[in-house]
Amino acid sequence: MISDEILKIGDKLPSVRMFSDKYGVSMGTAFQAYYHLEAKGLIEARPKSGYYVRFNMRRMPGLPEIADPEPVQSNVSVQEMIATVYRNISSDDLVNFSISAPPLSLLPAAKLKKSMLHALRNSRNQGILYEDIQGNPELRRQLARHSYSWGGKFAAGDVIVTAGCMEALVMCLKAVTRPGDTVAIENPTFFGIFQVIESLGLKALEIPTDPVTGIEPSQLAAAIKKFPIKACVFVPTFSNPLGSCMPDNKKEELVRLITRHRIPLIEDDIYGEMFFGPHRPRTCKSFDKEGWVMYCNSLSKSLAPGYRIGWTIPGRFTEQVLLTKLMHTVTGTTLTQDAAAHFLGIGRYDYHLKKLRKALHTQSLRYLQGIMTWFPPDTKVSRPQGGFVLWIELPRQLDAYRLYQQAFRRQVAVAPGQLFSARGQFGNCIRLSYARPWDAEVEEALKTLGSLIKEGARTRRPS
Amino acid sequence: MISDEILKIGDKLPSVRMFSDKYGVSMGTAFQAYYHLEAKGLIEARPKSGYYVRFNMRRMPGLPEIADPEPVQSNVSVQEMIATVYRNISSDDLVNFSISAPPLSLLPAAKLKKSMLHALRNSRNQGILYEDIQGNPELRRQLARHSYSWGGKFAAGDVIVTAGCMEALVMCLKAVTRPGDTVAIENPTFFGIFQVIESLGLKALEIPTDPVTGIEPSQLAAAIKKFPIKACVFVPTFSNPLGSCMPDNKKEELVRLITRHRIPLIEDDIYGEMFFGPHRPRTCKSFDKEGWVMYCNSLSKSLAPGYRIGWTIPGRFTEQVLLTKLMHTVTGTTLTQDAAAHFLGIGRYDYHLKKLRKALHTQSLRYLQGIMTWFPPDTKVSRPQGGFVLWIELPRQLDAYRLYQQAFRRQVAVAPGQLFSARGQFGNCIRLSYARPWDAEVEEALKTLGSLIKEGARTRRPS
Repeated sequence: MISDEILKIGDKLPSVRMFSDKYGVSMGTAFQAYYHLEAKGLIEARPKSGYYVRFNMRRMPGLPEIADPEPVQSNVSVQEMIATVYRNISSDDLVNFSISAPPLSLLPAAKLKKSMLHALRNSRNQGILYEDIQGNPELRRQLARHSYSWGGKFAAGDVIVTAGCMEALVMCLKAVTRPGDTVAIENPTFFGIFQVIESLGLKALEIPTDPVTGIEPSQLAAAIKKFPIKACVFVPTFSNPLGSCMPDNKKEELVRLITRHRIPLIEDDIYGEMFFGPHRPRTCKSFDKEGWVMYCNSLSKSLAPGYRIGWTIPGRFTEQVLLTKLMHTVTGTTLTQDAAAHFLGIGRYDYHLKKLRKALHTQSLRYLQGIMTWFPPDTKVSRPQGGFVLWIELPRQLDAYRLYQQAFRRQVAVAPGQLFSARGQFGNCIRLSYARPWDAEVEEALKTLGSLIKEGARTRRPS
Repeated sequence: MISDEILKIGDKLPSVRMFSDKYGVSMGTAFQAYYHLEAKGLIEARPKSGYYVRFNMRRMPGLPEIADPEPVQSNVSVQEMIATVYRNISSDDLVNFSISAPPLSLLPAAKLKKSMLHALRNSRNQGILYEDIQGNPELRRQLARHSYSWGGKFAAGDVIVTAGCMEALVMCLKAVTRPGDTVAIENPTFFGIFQVIESLGLKALEIPTDPVTGIEPSQLAAAIKKFPIKACVFVPTFSNPLGSCMPDNKKEELVRLITRHRIPLIEDDIYGEMFFGPHRPRTCKSFDKEGWVMYCNSLSKSLAPGYRIGWTIPGRFTEQVLLTKLMHTVTGTTLTQDAAAHFLGIGRYDYHLKKLRKALHTQSLRYLQGIMTWFPPDTKVSRPQGGFVLWIELPRQLDAYRLYQQAFRRQVAVAPGQLFSARGQFGNCIRLSYARPWDAEVEEALKTLGSLIKEGARTRRPS
């Protein structure tokens, strides 16, 4: 009703009792519904008065444009910017919107500790000896089982455990490329991806990405005709930073395309579990019949970054990935794999993910509302259906790296857009994480950002 | 007295009481001394008779030759041999001499468990969140402190924690080379080293190595003149498989040489703590004044392989190594670093190392004795002063890989010499680990090996 504008902002809602009578639901259910809307910032309770409409999803800011801007000259290299932004980010006074990962308060620390104690008590050899090179067999069984939720049908033998998702990506890349090869990536994309591609002596080819539907297979097809692409590294579900999610039919089309051209697709699905809709989006891997998709994921964004557990299902390249893993880091940590296997095995991971998704969805709407309130009216914002981040396009004349510096002096950190392209594009964009639960400090920080942006928009960028 | 042949094999020793009287030591001390010699297999007790000389260190077999044999044609690639030897090595029935690492019985499992519980109770955030990218600060402090034993003077800031020694080597190599570069390695050397060099798109240049004194700096100097060497990866202390240890003056000379040529030396010191002599051998790093030595080590051979803790002190390349680490695996496991920091901090590591060294020394002599007894008389054996392995040169006509296959069928595993050279040299050598404490099964297994070798030596190798 709110999004259809039957109820407008400021309108009073029917009381909980009236709602309960009208729809034939119990008072408890009605109250739950109102409470839920309130948590998301859609309605607000005014003391001794009732609930009022606060927010209309339809009145959303514009979407960022499909990306292909020319980079702006800068004295600072992308490399240096990344180093600056992610150095000393652990200050307690900092309101840090630059990290795309959940804070401790959204993670099940106490429950995980129990699983670790269980592992310590029951682990063969107290977890001292090398784990199976492919990874703890029980953990691999649990991860294979977990893939059912996105349409996967795998066995423990298909899974290789890695030290986080980055290692999974690196091992997959190493298994299918040689130095000098060209690898297609999204633009914008997570800087870790193009950094590691460079570090492996590979060339990154940036494919423009739609802020809602992600990679357009026909654009990739055109690029394949022009360039000798040897592999793709995409984040098809809730890309970072755009938050785009490829629809099922596009994913299927993409897999057909890369299969026809025999180009391995490394699918980074690290945000796939953090969906806000009713269903887990399918993965490209779920459409993969001939093993050309190398699926990668980890527990670092969803459960325990410090456990260093990622995994890959590399299809026809399983042997090569395993060999590369053996050569580079031998095997993973024994105890944390054991603990994670226990945590997943008793169903706690599924339960935790439900809570995490709900919290993130609520926070995403709250943050969006804050941005609409305190940022300039022509601000454009992505509309992620999952993940941790908003991608915000600011007035053209704004330099996001300068904004980062100004905000940092006021104890607020964002990720400037330049970090997300090898060529330093997106100088007027920022990525803002809503991972931190809403509180007064977040509110203050967003206000600060808003006023800095408004100020910056009034002065021209030095050219 | 035994080695000077004052007492010959089979001679009766003075009784414990006589020994005690003669040398003015207590009966207890005298008994301890005899017990110690017995444990090492130098003397034996005969019931109701006394102690007899069993073994003379001087009567050692010949040393393996300085290595530069031509490779023998083989239908099996080195890669395939490695995969075969290290697949399915976990059978409980196997007497496995192919692993250069301590068995659980030589590791302090219960004490480590206590440190892990301590970590779990006291870790910030229960060890769930990312560790400092450079590694746990307290662990780095302990590792820096530990370097005093080999002449190092470092602070926590000089150390980078990695996922085991292999990752340390890989990160160092990546920091100082580009694909196509040439890297000098020992010949023979641990296959992991030339495998990873190939996997990084680098070229391995094999430098012949003396079985006692390791790399000869003048030989490296000659190679530097002929080839564009961009880095060296050596194991100067107890090399694998030769067990050679460069004398201090050679180490110093080597460091001067690489410093003059500005060639980074990646020093793999993974066996450095397992010395049998009175003192910890110095490292190349201890002679390094200008930061060209990149020191690498780990706890995997000495404490807990499954903890995945290694470290590097990369000198002038610290920034580059840190960046590479961040890009490839982000950071290490939080909890195991915490536990290791505690274990080292309370002095348990030093105590454990003492016991481990003593056990390995005793075992090395016992195994050597077994080889002298059951292998053909012209067998040549290395004389390691530390580490886990013996390098054994068999009669020329023997094919070590065939011997491996025959032995494996009889539940005994050795590492055939071909694994230790990129070109499949050393086809008549085997590496034999004495990590497993001596028992009846070991004795049987060595007898089996001996008879297989005698058999093989009688038949000519098919050519």
